[in-house]
Amino acid sequence: MKFPAPPLPYDPESDHLREECGVFASYGAEDSALLIALGLHALQHRGQESCGIVTHDGSRIYAERHMGLVGEHFADGETHKRLPGNIGIGHVRYSTSGGTVIRNIQPLYADVRGGGIAVAHNGNLTNARTLRDELVASGAIFQSTSDTEVILQIAARSNRASSTRRFLSALKQIEGAFALVALVNGKLIAARDPFGIRPLVLGALDGATIVASETCALDVIGASYVRDIEPGEAIIVSADGIVSERFAPVRPARPCAFEYIYFARPDSVIAGLSVYEARKRMGAQLYKDAPADVDVVIPVPDSGVPAALGYAQAAGVPYEMGIIRGHYVGRTFIQPTQAKRDLGVRRKHSANPPVVKGKRVLLVDDSIVRGTTSRKIVDMMRDAGATEVHFRSACPPIKFPDFYGIDMPSREELMASTLEADEMARALKADSLGFLSIDGLYQAVLGETRNDTSPQLADHYFTGEYTTRLLDHERAASDKDRQLSLLVDA
Amino acid sequence: MKFPAPPLPYDPESDHLREECGVFASYGAEDSALLIALGLHALQHRGQESCGIVTHDGSRIYAERHMGLVGEHFADGETHKRLPGNIGIGHVRYSTSGGTVIRNIQPLYADVRGGGIAVAHNGNLTNARTLRDELVASGAIFQSTSDTEVILQIAARSNRASSTRRFLSALKQIEGAFALVALVNGKLIAARDPFGIRPLVLGALDGATIVASETCALDVIGASYVRDIEPGEAIIVSADGIVSERFAPVRPARPCAFEYIYFARPDSVIAGLSVYEARKRMGAQLYKDAPADVDVVIPVPDSGVPAALGYAQAAGVPYEMGIIRGHYVGRTFIQPTQAKRDLGVRRKHSANPPVVKGKRVLLVDDSIVRGTTSRKIVDMMRDAGATEVHFRSACPPIKFPDFYGIDMPSREELMASTLEADEMARALKADSLGFLSIDGLYQAVLGETRNDTSPQLADHYFTGEYTTRLLDHERAASDKDRQLSLLVDA
Amino acid sequence: MKFPAPPLPYDPESDHLREECGVFASYGAEDSALLIALGLHALQHRGQESCGIVTHDGSRIYAERHMGLVGEHFADGETHKRLPGNIGIGHVRYSTSGGTVIRNIQPLYADVRGGGIAVAHNGNLTNARTLRDELVASGAIFQSTSDTEVILQIAARSNRASSTRRFLSALKQIEGAFALVALVNGKLIAARDPFGIRPLVLGALDGATIVASETCALDVIGASYVRDIEPGEAIIVSADGIVSERFAPVRPARPCAFEYIYFARPDSVIAGLSVYEARKRMGAQLYKDAPADVDVVIPVPDSGVPAALGYAQAAGVPYEMGIIRGHYVGRTFIQPTQAKRDLGVRRKHSANPPVVKGKRVLLVDDSIVRGTTSRKIVDMMRDAGATEVHFRSACPPIKFPDFYGIDMPSREELMASTLEADEMARALKADSLGFLSIDGLYQAVLGETRNDTSPQLADHYFTGEYTTRLLDHERAASDKDRQLSLLVDA
Amino acid sequence: MKFPAPPLPYDPESDHLREECGVFASYGAEDSALLIALGLHALQHRGQESCGIVTHDGSRIYAERHMGLVGEHFADGETHKRLPGNIGIGHVRYSTSGGTVIRNIQPLYADVRGGGIAVAHNGNLTNARTLRDELVASGAIFQSTSDTEVILQIAARSNRASSTRRFLSALKQIEGAFALVALVNGKLIAARDPFGIRPLVLGALDGATIVASETCALDVIGASYVRDIEPGEAIIVSADGIVSERFAPVRPARPCAFEYIYFARPDSVIAGLSVYEARKRMGAQLYKDAPADVDVVIPVPDSGVPAALGYAQAAGVPYEMGIIRGHYVGRTFIQPTQAKRDLGVRRKHSANPPVVKGKRVLLVDDSIVRGTTSRKIVDMMRDAGATEVHFRSACPPIKFPDFYGIDMPSREELMASTLEADEMARALKADSLGFLSIDGLYQAVLGETRNDTSPQLADHYFTGEYTTRLLDHERAASDKDRQLSLLVDA
Repeated sequence: MKFPAPPLPYDPESDHLREECGVFASYGAEDSALLIALGLHALQHRGQESCGIVTHDGSRIYAERHMGLVGEHFADGETHKRLPGNIGIGHVRYSTSGGTVIRNIQPLYADVRGGGIAVAHNGNLTNARTLRDELVASGAIFQSTSDTEVILQIAARSNRASSTRRFLSALKQIEGAFALVALVNGKLIAARDPFGIRPLVLGALDGATIVASETCALDVIGASYVRDIEPGEAIIVSADGIVSERFAPVRPARPCAFEYIYFARPDSVIAGLSVYEARKRMGAQLYKDAPADVDVVIPVPDSGVPAALGYAQAAGVPYEMGIIRGHYVGRTFIQPTQAKRDLGVRRKHSANPPVVKGKRVLLVDDSIVRGTTSRKIVDMMRDAGATEVHFRSACPPIKFPDFYGIDMPSREELMASTLEADEMARALKADSLGFLSIDGLYQAVLGETRNDTSPQLADHYFTGEYTTRLLDHERAASDKDRQLSLLVDA
Repeated sequence: MKFPAPPLPYDPESDHLREECGVFASYGAEDSALLIALGLHALQHRGQESCGIVTHDGSRIYAERHMGLVGEHFADGETHKRLPGNIGIGHVRYSTSGGTVIRNIQPLYADVRGGGIAVAHNGNLTNARTLRDELVASGAIFQSTSDTEVILQIAARSNRASSTRRFLSALKQIEGAFALVALVNGKLIAARDPFGIRPLVLGALDGATIVASETCALDVIGASYVRDIEPGEAIIVSADGIVSERFAPVRPARPCAFEYIYFARPDSVIAGLSVYEARKRMGAQLYKDAPADVDVVIPVPDSGVPAALGYAQAAGVPYEMGIIRGHYVGRTFIQPTQAKRDLGVRRKHSANPPVVKGKRVLLVDDSIVRGTTSRKIVDMMRDAGATEVHFRSACPPIKFPDFYGIDMPSREELMASTLEADEMARALKADSLGFLSIDGLYQAVLGETRNDTSPQLADHYFTGEYTTRLLDHERAASDKDRQLSLLVDA
Repeated sequence: MKFPAPPLPYDPESDHLREECGVFASYGAEDSALLIALGLHALQHRGQESCGIVTHDGSRIYAERHMGLVGEHFADGETHKRLPGNIGIGHVRYSTSGGTVIRNIQPLYADVRGGGIAVAHNGNLTNARTLRDELVASGAIFQSTSDTEVILQIAARSNRASSTRRFLSALKQIEGAFALVALVNGKLIAARDPFGIRPLVLGALDGATIVASETCALDVIGASYVRDIEPGEAIIVSADGIVSERFAPVRPARPCAFEYIYFARPDSVIAGLSVYEARKRMGAQLYKDAPADVDVVIPVPDSGVPAALGYAQAAGVPYEMGIIRGHYVGRTFIQPTQAKRDLGVRRKHSANPPVVKGKRVLLVDDSIVRGTTSRKIVDMMRDAGATEVHFRSACPPIKFPDFYGIDMPSREELMASTLEADEMARALKADSLGFLSIDGLYQAVLGETRNDTSPQLADHYFTGEYTTRLLDHERAASDKDRQLSLLVDA
Repeated sequence: MKFPAPPLPYDPESDHLREECGVFASYGAEDSALLIALGLHALQHRGQESCGIVTHDGSRIYAERHMGLVGEHFADGETHKRLPGNIGIGHVRYSTSGGTVIRNIQPLYADVRGGGIAVAHNGNLTNARTLRDELVASGAIFQSTSDTEVILQIAARSNRASSTRRFLSALKQIEGAFALVALVNGKLIAARDPFGIRPLVLGALDGATIVASETCALDVIGASYVRDIEPGEAIIVSADGIVSERFAPVRPARPCAFEYIYFARPDSVIAGLSVYEARKRMGAQLYKDAPADVDVVIPVPDSGVPAALGYAQAAGVPYEMGIIRGHYVGRTFIQPTQAKRDLGVRRKHSANPPVVKGKRVLLVDDSIVRGTTSRKIVDMMRDAGATEVHFRSACPPIKFPDFYGIDMPSREELMASTLEADEMARALKADSLGFLSIDGLYQAVLGETRNDTSPQLADHYFTGEYTTRLLDHERAASDKDRQLSLLVDA
């Protein structure tokens, strides 16, 4: 027997943008670690590489951080014994480019004057590097290369009297996208960035207060949804109850469009709108934007399913499972010598020939990123006997990079960034290619058109218009390439 | 950091019958281990607990057998170096009651007079214990407690001159269900039991010969389907080509009905019929057998999807994803103190409220086994606001045990074995409960009614009529409880 | 963090002959697994690669077999729960040439007519291959490539009525060296080969019966020594007490000389003689056989210590620790670029310069095998300032291979097999080299000279005279190269 | 098979004081990681729980830190590829009370203004807690609970212009015992505390500079000894050569007496004196201080060997291996039911009866700590037939705690702290008990008597006189109990 290769918690060949994090917090419930474990499990789609839980039992703070899935580490009957206490926060994370090191796994923790602070953060700060440089110059030692630590370091150095004040003062100095939960001196603080780019919701379970990235994590534990945390709002939960504070002016949220398109779980509700319904409406709108005369509508499973249903219902064309998705996806198998075509995609997706043969098929996927999988699926449909293959993306062409915590390929790798739509169709070998329009996206999500002077969604992927300034990015390119740390930690 | 709990390759809470094995073989292709690894990966749904590959390079025989998934052990670039050769067989296995020990993992191997024999077997022999007792009494030492070893021991003791003859003579002595592939003295032998209960297909890839439990394993490597191995037929593949031999009289196959209902992958074709199409037709037939006036048809994912589509199309009622299935199912999480209802099912399935709220919903699942999950899902629909919840099983009531290699609960645990349909409806708290009829099943699969004197399917689950005699089972119960081995191997 | 390389349980660079096994058994003591674990731990020097324990609780038989040390697997508080019962046997093993596979780890077990047999064996059979060929030809399937399984297979096929008789009849058919313990139908059988080549002793602990390879394993559990098992004797321990049977004629033992020289632990007593005393007497005799005018006697630690003490006391020369042995020996480190000499030996042994500098030193080691380490140690002494370096081996020159279970290099690698003594001295760069004479060895061990017509020790290493015929060895060389199994088990 | 318990790198039952760390550094040698690995391996006796190496290749800094032995992690052929560069430092560590967490494993590293600093430290600071409190109050965030990080934090906040200056200014603020090596901006800094309590030596290997805790680590790589680093001296090694700086006034070293007694390897030389010779002289002096009329002198292996040899030579009494030490010590085995006496000690040490029986024996050990092992060994000698058993400790009675980096039991557990010598003799059941006197210790080590106004050794274990003030210790006890961190890191 040989030692098995560790199973991968995610599909390394997936051609999607990838959400980087999910957060969850519980205040006032017994054995909070068990609730957090279930909540993080429900948020697992937001990050599969590492997970961590920090709890507080009134005197000590308990932390566990691991590479791997929540269920591998926090499902056993000892979790609440190792992590005792009625207050706690948790985090799941997917990290770019294999560079995850143990010290970056969240929640991050620091002992500071007057106690300890733990913080779990979803999003990305656009001035973290600038702030970090200033802090290091004045003698700060960073334990991680994570943006999140900047918040801890600023709070540690603040001369405000209370821990809570020190933490809130740090929130005023950071820019970018953040939805975070923190344990500060026995209190739970939850905060969302001034534009509300990343989602964060407040829930209740008996007397306990719950905070989560998505409502699906409330549902899993049977908690009720109370309301979204507002942009620029911090909620402080303590023995005295829940207090709301503002660290930025009141303004309507400008949530990330991609939460509706792909990131969020279909059974979640964001800003009052069901994600599943939004996706079905995108599919229906896509039919308006890019109709085709076909025999059957086929989703690219699993993320294309709701939009394909919406498209099929709007078009009055049968919806069929023309592509079967294998459930045991994992490592990339070595290609056998004898194989004539690339077998990678067939390992994950296989054609269902009786549905496809002799048909004009229309494939619906949530998006096209590099186009690598899309091309193989078009091929696969033809191999299975389709007479025509039409491809539809239920979001507009993705052309611009993200700076708010999303893992995406470089701009050169984005198919829509370098090719026109007709070139893309030819590259995919599709009989036609169609995208949801930007206005179609707004109609599907909001039932109204885009307000170009103050857009209602963070839609930079399609428009290149960013919600905040990009301070770190604007600094000289040479400086950007500088490593945050000299350390290579094996 | 603590040591992570090993991930489970299957869902321990699944309330389904479970197929126990899949087999795959390749003769004449370079680096056969790579083809076998991919083929087994495509058959992973037939067994997730252990996997093994045996190859032959002309002089030595190479074996690797592991607990866990194919992708964990055979996806790396060293697989074909550790397992060289142009001939090979493989096996995936799910084993009942946690009793798997390393020595039972297949393919089994024995050095015998004139060479070595390796065999991988899907199914269960109904006279294995009787044969084993005779062999032990005459001095045989068994290395495993697997039925399959009986074949090896009989072959080893046969006084026929050639290895192939010895192996074929063993096939004549065994009874029950078997679809097996074997390496015998540099030849590949594939054989299917006299009634063809378990599936086995022949394929071709350039000059190479492929044998697999299902056609989906041919598709994944780009091999073409040639034909099904016939009941009572053995195929001997050698340098001289392919020879077919019969070890039992010619008769039509009587394939297991449950392969169509649940076991096989939807993109497989069994006896010329697409499994996906069969399931859609079962759904359409189910609508005829048990119609209901509802607003929406909802599949219990993922196995209920094709039947639900068929039902919805036949009924002209919208099909919607009213239940979302989590992708990161694994260990059972500890129930938090605060939880009021059982959260287990919510971890795997969650309601999608916008689709359900205020609606009369009809749930379609492939089958009802113990009914534990079904009851929770009905509850979940009501919690999500459904006004009526109707439940439909796309197969007839399961009442009788299997002896042909299927893992099922004891008869007392089978809901339909102890309760009438109306009692079941009450137990599930469903507004109505309906099943596919036995004739509906035959119509969907074969387009004809059941021939009661010679049934066309192995349908004992529903009828209690078994395809073969059950020799071991008929021996005294006290004898049956006797352990096959005194050994408890830690 | 990276995954650590598994620690090696033995020193891969050691230049010694290596004992291959130790056995231990207990009958009639509660929680026998705990006694066996301790006993095997005391015998760990006889085999560090794998270990196994089999127990019997009156109805079932429990087995655990592992790669690695006894303390890694059998020291925890669950050992006696996993392995219940008042009867049990155990085994430690070192295996040649990295070829250990799980299925060869002892004790071996077989379910046979009338029950189960487990056997643990120290030694090597000289007709095992011949017997195996006959058994395979008549249909036997072997589960291992171990010699020991031949005994099980013969017993399984015997037509004697009782299990005990069947086992004893097998003992009459095997040739070579064996000291074995077996569980047969609830009885403990211990047997020693007709010449008593390998040691085996009987002990008592309250009412319980203990059998072990060496007395040090009796001491560790506080058991008293009763007597040696005699050559050709089998002891059957059952509820009826202890019965002695002979399966070979009475004759005096001819124990392996190397047990005294190196294999046995110094605190063991073999055939009434303390191993420590024997070694000291070899040292004293070595002084008579090969005196030298030196300032200090230095042992090559640890195995050279008793002989060096004996030499120093006889010579009246100070005994000093001129070589320090590191305690954390394990993997071979990569040689740094900058290193000028081979650093391997310095990692294990380092000179203690104040003891060596300006002195004429005499090194005493138990034996010289390939001479590789000896040469480096001579160098090291010179580097540390010795003015003369004399080397003494406390056994005669090793020139001939072993067939009785000892791991040794090929004959070509044995320094004394290819070089004369003066050539060896030059090769070692020693100022003089001396060996214990064969008569010196007999005087030290037995206090008498060698009886050349019927030697009192198995001394083939030095004389080439073997105790038994070598049936397998005498078969054609081409046949010997034939693999016992076609299987390569990864 | 079960998963093996991880092997313990040290003996958990050892009744000795324990050195906590060893350090090693290399500047200017190719593949420095390989030299460091070998050097740390030679220092493994100074710490077996964790190990770490940090290297610098001119641009990046590479770190690996592990639980376990050097040979488990740094012996493979990839070590120098994972850790490239010609400059590097390393550390081995044993940590008290099981509290080691990954973040405390050394070398510690911090990115600071102007580069990165890594430091590896042997010893303990007596004002670390006080300094840490001040730093935290002004906003510092500590990544570890290690004393060593105080040095990094002070250096990070220093306003001196160069990194080297900042580091040296930190050295002036710390008190206690320290022998440290650091990588600072491409330079290697080595420093020893103002009293030279812990050892640190300078060596050379071709053009490269080596620094190590003990000379045995120079020997293992073939480096030559240059000189000891002086108390209060810092050595800065850079491309410009070696510069010596003082951060404390010149004064003679006051090395820890226990380095000579037990900690250091016998082949090391400290302050010009061979440790082996010192121990032999302690044995000879012990004979003068506590003679006895006996037949044989027996060392308690392995640490009592040199003193026993010295005693035996001075007394003119035979030296014999009356106690055999097992080589495969590890986990504590579960005590079998049947055992009448504690078997723990027999697992590690066993009596060698022929040497002991009927004799008056004198046991020599290096020290007596709790006396637990000593008592069992006295028992064991009597069981083996000794007529009288005399016990001698080759150091004075240990009565006082250490604050300079040594792991010892609490004062209440120190046998000599609570009992008079005659009470101890009775407790050990020894016929007599004797200790080396304090003056005997000074005579053996220095050849002169103790200078009571300015003692030449750190001998607080015996005298209660500490070399430095104990600032942290003097703060209120309640404050001492305060946790350095609120975090419990699982």
